[in-house]
Amino acid sequence: MVFMRKVAIVGVGMSKFGEEWTRGYRDMLIEAGGRALADCNLHGEEIDGIYVGTMAPGSLVGQEHIGALVADFMGLNPVPATRVEAACASGGVALRTGYLAVASGAHDCVVVGGVEKMTDTPGNEVTSALGGAGDQEWELFMGATFPAIYALMARRHMLEYGTTEEQMASVAVKNHLNASKNKFAHFQNEITIEMVLKSKAVASPLKLFDCSPITDGAAAVVLMPLEKAKKYAQMPIEIIASAQASDALALHSRESMTSLRATKVAAKKAFETANLAPKDIDVVEVHDCFTIAEIMAIEDLGFFEKGKGGAATQEGKTALNSEISVNTSGGLKGCGHPVGATGVKQAVEIAWQLRGQAEARQVKDAKIGMTHNVGGSGATAVVHIFKRAE
Amino acid sequence: MVFMRKVAIVGVGMSKFGEEWTRGYRDMLIEAGGRALADCNLHGEEIDGIYVGTMAPGSLVGQEHIGALVADFMGLNPVPATRVEAACASGGVALRTGYLAVASGAHDCVVVGGVEKMTDTPGNEVTSALGGAGDQEWELFMGATFPAIYALMARRHMLEYGTTEEQMASVAVKNHLNASKNKFAHFQNEITIEMVLKSKAVASPLKLFDCSPITDGAAAVVLMPLEKAKKYAQMPIEIIASAQASDALALHSRESMTSLRATKVAAKKAFETANLAPKDIDVVEVHDCFTIAEIMAIEDLGFFEKGKGGAATQEGKTALNSEISVNTSGGLKGCGHPVGATGVKQAVEIAWQLRGQAEARQVKDAKIGMTHNVGGSGATAVVHIFKRAE
Repeated sequence: MVFMRKVAIVGVGMSKFGEEWTRGYRDMLIEAGGRALADCNLHGEEIDGIYVGTMAPGSLVGQEHIGALVADFMGLNPVPATRVEAACASGGVALRTGYLAVASGAHDCVVVGGVEKMTDTPGNEVTSALGGAGDQEWELFMGATFPAIYALMARRHMLEYGTTEEQMASVAVKNHLNASKNKFAHFQNEITIEMVLKSKAVASPLKLFDCSPITDGAAAVVLMPLEKAKKYAQMPIEIIASAQASDALALHSRESMTSLRATKVAAKKAFETANLAPKDIDVVEVHDCFTIAEIMAIEDLGFFEKGKGGAATQEGKTALNSEISVNTSGGLKGCGHPVGATGVKQAVEIAWQLRGQAEARQVKDAKIGMTHNVGGSGATAVVHIFKRAE
Repeated sequence: MVFMRKVAIVGVGMSKFGEEWTRGYRDMLIEAGGRALADCNLHGEEIDGIYVGTMAPGSLVGQEHIGALVADFMGLNPVPATRVEAACASGGVALRTGYLAVASGAHDCVVVGGVEKMTDTPGNEVTSALGGAGDQEWELFMGATFPAIYALMARRHMLEYGTTEEQMASVAVKNHLNASKNKFAHFQNEITIEMVLKSKAVASPLKLFDCSPITDGAAAVVLMPLEKAKKYAQMPIEIIASAQASDALALHSRESMTSLRATKVAAKKAFETANLAPKDIDVVEVHDCFTIAEIMAIEDLGFFEKGKGGAATQEGKTALNSEISVNTSGGLKGCGHPVGATGVKQAVEIAWQLRGQAEARQVKDAKIGMTHNVGGSGATAVVHIFKRAE
């Protein structure tokens, strides 16, 4: 690790998340990338590397070779451009890959993008494409879509720890409240516990409002060596840890149904690298593809004891400016979940928080932030820790 | 660049390329990975990073999240595992990404894999999936499949430089001859100029034997810092340059139809990094998805003057142990082109050549080798230079 340079985020941007029926894959990624460049007054010719996270454009829009697409449509040829994929963690893994490219000294100015176009695709294509994030041969082929897989985890968490449907609902209510303060969020409306509990069952005990939506969107960040970053950003956001781990693709092969080993391994490594503990984190974006996922995440990341995440949420301990502000952007549930974009959007939100630019959802005096991005039902987890550069 | 460590290949392996109707995506990648580990007597617990190049498993086998799949099925959890994609250059880009991960000091032992399962998929799925390597909205949607796009380049090359169909055929004949000496190659039979010229037109002037086949296969290499490599390999193969470039996704947006700018930019950077010139290269694997592509490649890489590649091939200057030994493995044409595997297979072949293990196709006293991997019709190019470590 001694060879690595310090790396900072100097510019961030995202497209409005939502059901963007009139806008295509290319439109959104150019918008997000353009905003990130404008955010740090960067000219294209200074960029020497591009990394893009996206999960399933081959299935969803018939296009692969996404790195080259981005370089082309942002006018950045012949800059090397690479797409990375890790299902719903594609964005987080792209951030880590871009981070390593700058840390290594191979690149001096990298744009990391994340994008997914999920509406306006034929028939069952989205559910089927998302099923490719799990074990296609053992799960999707047998009918286990993602809501079904997370429903199994929710049932087991309820059985082992007494977690309730109201507690899960309280995750959705909090995240919609946060999203209502975020102009880029898919949902701009508050909801109530009752609305969640009365919403249609998708895969019991998960109801419609326990599930993140099908969303279109893109996000981008610009990375530089910390030394250089100070010339471009008034307040560079240093990436002080980047860690990734894998686990079995299929839920039935894991050691636990109520805890993600990949999250725990990545978090441990990230905390060790940054020499920090959970209590040091002021604001965190976690991977709440379903409400139960946020409960498991805040436990596995060490913010609450295993089994206490549901109660903690219900008691308001994860609300804005409480014990730990969780998913101030609205999370995947409220801000939306364009799968490849999510991991990058999390970094955008944390940068805004640490810079004090998060408007009505600002965490007071946020100094240290974290992102947690999960692929599939937990076979990939990526954790980053950020701080305001001194 | 001053921060980067020297990186070497210590182990290599590949599956038998071909139409493997009885073997799945997972079988092949495990076979290739297992062979690469056995090649350097490596135990799984020493591996701390995985990078996999694969183009379109979402469309072809319904599976994404390929990094996690590899980690899982090779028994390597919780090692971080990342899939990269750059169409037909996915393998080369995976090699470069793994190289940067080791060079940066982030990882000390990385497995880089490449894989594609292309037979045994429904209907037109393969041609359609491969079309995603070009500009889906401007090329594939209008009916321009890959043979059609390369046929345009061939026609233009014939017009501008007088390249002939016989010259293109001589690429196929040479590569089949080389493949007949490679037990891992898809095709094991020699062919004649007449057989190529009389084969069915696919997209005139390209005929069936001008086109690389639809192939199943996987390849893998193990990377380590050079210092450490010496403990694992009798003859580590050092990666002395790794360069990548992008260009417009669609052929009609390029500055030339007879030259790939991305190849030229990547080659220039690679030669500068290694402080070498084309004359220093003893053996090269180039991206001959179509015969015209090899002719353009040996020109753009600097081995022959622009426009002279066809004649040089016909005169035998690229044959085994001639001026420059090109595609000793059989290339994409003879060895086969499982798209995501190709860029990694090229590195496997060069490692065998530099170690003196290439059997009947051995280039005499090969000291310096090169690989050239292209995505789509030229929107991505990746060039690596290798040498026997001292």
